[in-house]
Amino acid sequence: MSAEFLAELATLTDPAGILTGAATDGYLLDQRRRFAGRALAVARPRDTAEVAAMLALCHRHRVAVVPQGGNTSLCGGATPDSSGQALLLSLERFHGIDDIDADNNTITVAAGATLASVQAAARSAGRLFPADWAAAASCQIGGALATNAGGINVLRYGNMRNLVLGLEVVLADGTIWNGLRGLRKDNTGYDLKQLFVGSEGTLGIITRAVLRLYPAPTAHATALVPVAGPQAALELLHELQAAAGDRITSFELISAPCMALLAQHFPALPQPFAPIPDWLVLIELADAGEDSALQDKLAEVLFAQGLDEALLAQHASQSRAFWELRESIPEAQRLEGVSIKHDISVPLSAIPDFIEQCGRALLAAYPTAQIIAFGHLGDGNLHYNIFLPDHSAGVYAEEEHINAIIYREVAERRGSFSAEHGIGQLKRGLMQHYRSPVELALMRQIKQALDPHNLMNPGKFLPD
Amino acid sequence: MSAEFLAELATLTDPAGILTGAATDGYLLDQRRRFAGRALAVARPRDTAEVAAMLALCHRHRVAVVPQGGNTSLCGGATPDSSGQALLLSLERFHGIDDIDADNNTITVAAGATLASVQAAARSAGRLFPADWAAAASCQIGGALATNAGGINVLRYGNMRNLVLGLEVVLADGTIWNGLRGLRKDNTGYDLKQLFVGSEGTLGIITRAVLRLYPAPTAHATALVPVAGPQAALELLHELQAAAGDRITSFELISAPCMALLAQHFPALPQPFAPIPDWLVLIELADAGEDSALQDKLAEVLFAQGLDEALLAQHASQSRAFWELRESIPEAQRLEGVSIKHDISVPLSAIPDFIEQCGRALLAAYPTAQIIAFGHLGDGNLHYNIFLPDHSAGVYAEEEHINAIIYREVAERRGSFSAEHGIGQLKRGLMQHYRSPVELALMRQIKQALDPHNLMNPGKFLPD
Repeated sequence: MSAEFLAELATLTDPAGILTGAATDGYLLDQRRRFAGRALAVARPRDTAEVAAMLALCHRHRVAVVPQGGNTSLCGGATPDSSGQALLLSLERFHGIDDIDADNNTITVAAGATLASVQAAARSAGRLFPADWAAAASCQIGGALATNAGGINVLRYGNMRNLVLGLEVVLADGTIWNGLRGLRKDNTGYDLKQLFVGSEGTLGIITRAVLRLYPAPTAHATALVPVAGPQAALELLHELQAAAGDRITSFELISAPCMALLAQHFPALPQPFAPIPDWLVLIELADAGEDSALQDKLAEVLFAQGLDEALLAQHASQSRAFWELRESIPEAQRLEGVSIKHDISVPLSAIPDFIEQCGRALLAAYPTAQIIAFGHLGDGNLHYNIFLPDHSAGVYAEEEHINAIIYREVAERRGSFSAEHGIGQLKRGLMQHYRSPVELALMRQIKQALDPHNLMNPGKFLPD
Repeated sequence: MSAEFLAELATLTDPAGILTGAATDGYLLDQRRRFAGRALAVARPRDTAEVAAMLALCHRHRVAVVPQGGNTSLCGGATPDSSGQALLLSLERFHGIDDIDADNNTITVAAGATLASVQAAARSAGRLFPADWAAAASCQIGGALATNAGGINVLRYGNMRNLVLGLEVVLADGTIWNGLRGLRKDNTGYDLKQLFVGSEGTLGIITRAVLRLYPAPTAHATALVPVAGPQAALELLHELQAAAGDRITSFELISAPCMALLAQHFPALPQPFAPIPDWLVLIELADAGEDSALQDKLAEVLFAQGLDEALLAQHASQSRAFWELRESIPEAQRLEGVSIKHDISVPLSAIPDFIEQCGRALLAAYPTAQIIAFGHLGDGNLHYNIFLPDHSAGVYAEEEHINAIIYREVAERRGSFSAEHGIGQLKRGLMQHYRSPVELALMRQIKQALDPHNLMNPGKFLPD
């Protein structure tokens, strides 16, 4: 069967489009190196028609399909299982920018376009595509949509769900749904695109998208601000929201252990405060007009709050230096060793209490644990990572127990155990515990309706 | 069967909760008086448990359910058919504000709460709930969510879909789904709430919601601006977006025939321009800070564009007077007589061409037609209504032909035949023509999965 399938598959694209053997290695291991899989082959379609033909073939042969974008999933969402019976379908060769409609503030792109290429295309049209995160240069729009990715500008612009107006999707049987509309309002039936955004390839493969663009801001202001703690940070956020509203694009919380990790692993990065303050917030504002007006506004709020130690970036390179600190935290963690990572959200009002109570519970169970807490406070989203004295993969033995402590504190506040990274393989087991039976039943009904043979990215997302 | 059903229904709430006979009349006619229906009874549950018990009963007896909020649908979406075999379920007695979490910028409300009551509760907590439209005092949040309603602030804040973080829904079999989370980020499975927003009661009944709040703006600026035409209006919008970004809450286009209708039916309303300009835009900005700074910014952009005739509101009462003109257009139309109404959207870049070409096509077929065009230019959404010399219901004889002309022009620009008013009964027949077979099949799969006995608001929304 497999030989017949592969022979037919080879007729659906050019010779460079089908990889087997060692050429597939890079596609079969996730970027965190936690999940390794096998596949019948790697298919690299060049356009929607090829994706559709491949899915139709897979449907006839009942071959499972694992879609992959830039292979930057943090949850093993794009890695096949070890059976070797699935087709890995990479969108990397389908990466064009179809169209920019500056008057409509929209851009139409193929799924394999990298986030950075979309940002650049928008910039060249005098517009902003605001999604941004560390993997921008390698992640692809299809994957970003399929995981409803977030990043550093969610506070103002929302996550990928908020940035998409239309989709083209190839369904499990190879049917093409063309929903490439560029409309800001359209109440004509169920909003089908919402089904596919965040579904991690389990309902179909996103092939093209119409995305929202925004006017490119001309003024920026950045500050790095020592604060007494998470409650003080939250109060500052509200003062700033009252004064500056949607000009706030980022409001990031950084705890002292993050800065200590940076000092250790990136000694060349200037440490702006000595000694390191217990808590910092990194604030970014953007607006039309001149930098100076925006910087004055930010300074006004900070000084009205008595935050005299705040550092306001005086020029773009200082702003970049502040951001380099924030963006180097994940790499400093990696250099430090293996940690148990969490990407949680709670209502903003519950953040200070969560940080206090969860820290207490963890240290009671693991008195030597080190907690690396940082993230998008403005979205109620924390990256909350735990080091034990053993910095090797041996700590994964404690993962389940540590997770149970943290996710209990999250669940008590009606929070989420995966705010922006999704489910993939890594968090699939948590669905059963932290989503209700009614919710799981609804999700299974949808999955069954759209993919009755369970061919789309099986073994991910929904628990068995 | 019906007697047994009604007897059991009566045990599920208090005596005031079940209406029959003449007491049901007000629930069985839509507000535009185009659709009259009949029902077994009107049930008025007081809480989620009563809704659930009623839907479970209906499910056992295979009795159809028509949910109704404030009965303000413009498309007959909340009116039962003439069979008299459905239960009309009104949420009007389930209208509390459950909770305001100002630190999380969220409010939790029951489905029957009017939009105005939610706006007022937000205001009392120093926050803004930004959804707003003419029926605010009588429409209910459940209906607003079920129809994904829009209104005058969509440009900045989005429609109801963008304003909801969590839902509680009673499903077709009476199961309660509690998704009342107040999180800005949560990537743990399909985003189920998206299914119910805009589904017009065909998949379940929304009983409670967690809604987003915003800082209340302290500064406002309003201008009424004569422009050369739709293209000039669009250019002004882009200049203003570059200069003021998200401070623009409304950007409304008004054509001369609208102003003429106002002059005729509301002679007491001051007409700010004589003669009436061919086209006007009504602009509203909101921000933190002082009115004067925002008004200066607006004036700067207008005068840089050479729009010397622009009127800037000098105080709140003048702003209200400008808005009263805009908001009186629908009532002036009603006083003028019966028109064929449309609520369409196209990409913003296609608006000028649409207005020109569609007007030409209509006047070729109906040389005496009068076109009343106005609406939310910033969202690409026009209300586009046609008077024929006969101002009586007789014009409905031409409705199908007029619609065919207009919707052809809309479809050629990949627009929508219902931007914000939804489908209901009025536009159900259009679904078959203007949504693709793939889209309709996907919608039917979802409907079948969640409501296999077709009990939820049958005869609406999806074509047979």
